[in-house]
Amino acid sequence: METVLMRDIVERVLEKIQKERTIPVEASGRHVHLSRQHIGQLFGEHYQMTKKKDLSQPGQFQCNERVTLIGPKGVLQGVAILGPARDRTQVEVSISDARVLGIAPPVRESGHLDGAGSIYIAAEKAVIEARESVIISKRHIHMTPADAARFDVKDRQIVSVRVKGERSIVFEDVVVRVNDAYRLNMHIDFDEANAAGFCPGVVGEVIL
Amino acid sequence: METVLMRDIVERVLEKIQKERTIPVEASGRHVHLSRQHIGQLFGEHYQMTKKKDLSQPGQFQCNERVTLIGPKGVLQGVAILGPARDRTQVEVSISDARVLGIAPPVRESGHLDGAGSIYIAAEKAVIEARESVIISKRHIHMTPADAARFDVKDRQIVSVRVKGERSIVFEDVVVRVNDAYRLNMHIDFDEANAAGFCPGVVGEVIL
Repeated sequence: METVLMRDIVERVLEKIQKERTIPVEASGRHVHLSRQHIGQLFGEHYQMTKKKDLSQPGQFQCNERVTLIGPKGVLQGVAILGPARDRTQVEVSISDARVLGIAPPVRESGHLDGAGSIYIAAEKAVIEARESVIISKRHIHMTPADAARFDVKDRQIVSVRVKGERSIVFEDVVVRVNDAYRLNMHIDFDEANAAGFCPGVVGEVIL
Repeated sequence: METVLMRDIVERVLEKIQKERTIPVEASGRHVHLSRQHIGQLFGEHYQMTKKKDLSQPGQFQCNERVTLIGPKGVLQGVAILGPARDRTQVEVSISDARVLGIAPPVRESGHLDGAGSIYIAAEKAVIEARESVIISKRHIHMTPADAARFDVKDRQIVSVRVKGERSIVFEDVVVRVNDAYRLNMHIDFDEANAAGFCPGVVGEVIL
């Protein structure tokens, strides 16, 4: 009797520990964040972007409007625009996308745009050149300070995350980003999602 | 003096062990292996495919000829054909490719085609339907029995391999395939290569 009870307790504790170290994973497709100025040039002065749907990070949303990316070797049409407007235009593509476009942007964290790639962006009103705007997004985890305390990690810490799918992978070099305004989520791109055989609903397990 | 000597020896031994556990990694693009019958239908009866270049696995080569893959949602042109002819036609694509084509083939080892996806293949003479031919190649390592002894692994064993790039990854679920006719090489597809920020020349490190 006691052995069974003990085993039951151990199993429940292990399950709880396991659950507490898992993170929802989302695959982000190619998208652009536009500056106020670029929105004006691409869609018309004082144009107000319209919301299609909210995203997992509070305050972030996808717009109904879309743009075309034009590179030296190829074009990507119907690329999503995420709002709200940012100080600088930022274009996030996968390495597969970059190869189609014919560019080789660096792997970077969001907002780190010095030395980023350049691309032409087309919409109804214009084609603009967005210099130093294109990055391959470095995989990252958004979390609140409470999450960080629970995972025992700090802002900007590099961790590894196992994503168990049909093609299980341990992603090393995952940067943790801690902010009160975030919601717990790991973001990978479609190359990474495909490499892991990722399906929506699969979670990541943090390995320190 | 002795401490320095000892450190030197230890470093050399560690370097040797490290080197002995590394594997050359190759990224395979989408390609097809055609059956003799399908070569006849696509290029003409008794047509002899012509060699463009030898591949890393002895006896395997890429042909000058290419085909078009036609799926319900999209088309991939200029797809490489690998020789020699096989008993059954096998089409290997990445998950990215499969999404373009609009199909969802299974992740499989080469040759395991029961339940594989179907696709139309077009060349000069015809468009054929290749039923149960399309797979997402399961990542794998080719090695000789001597390699297997050195790595202390067996044919069909599942291992993990760390590929250190700009986006380091540990690929779990890597199947070892041992054969006298093989040459040591790990094969991943372009989704996996891009996820790891892979560049030619990067090696994998086997983790048991």
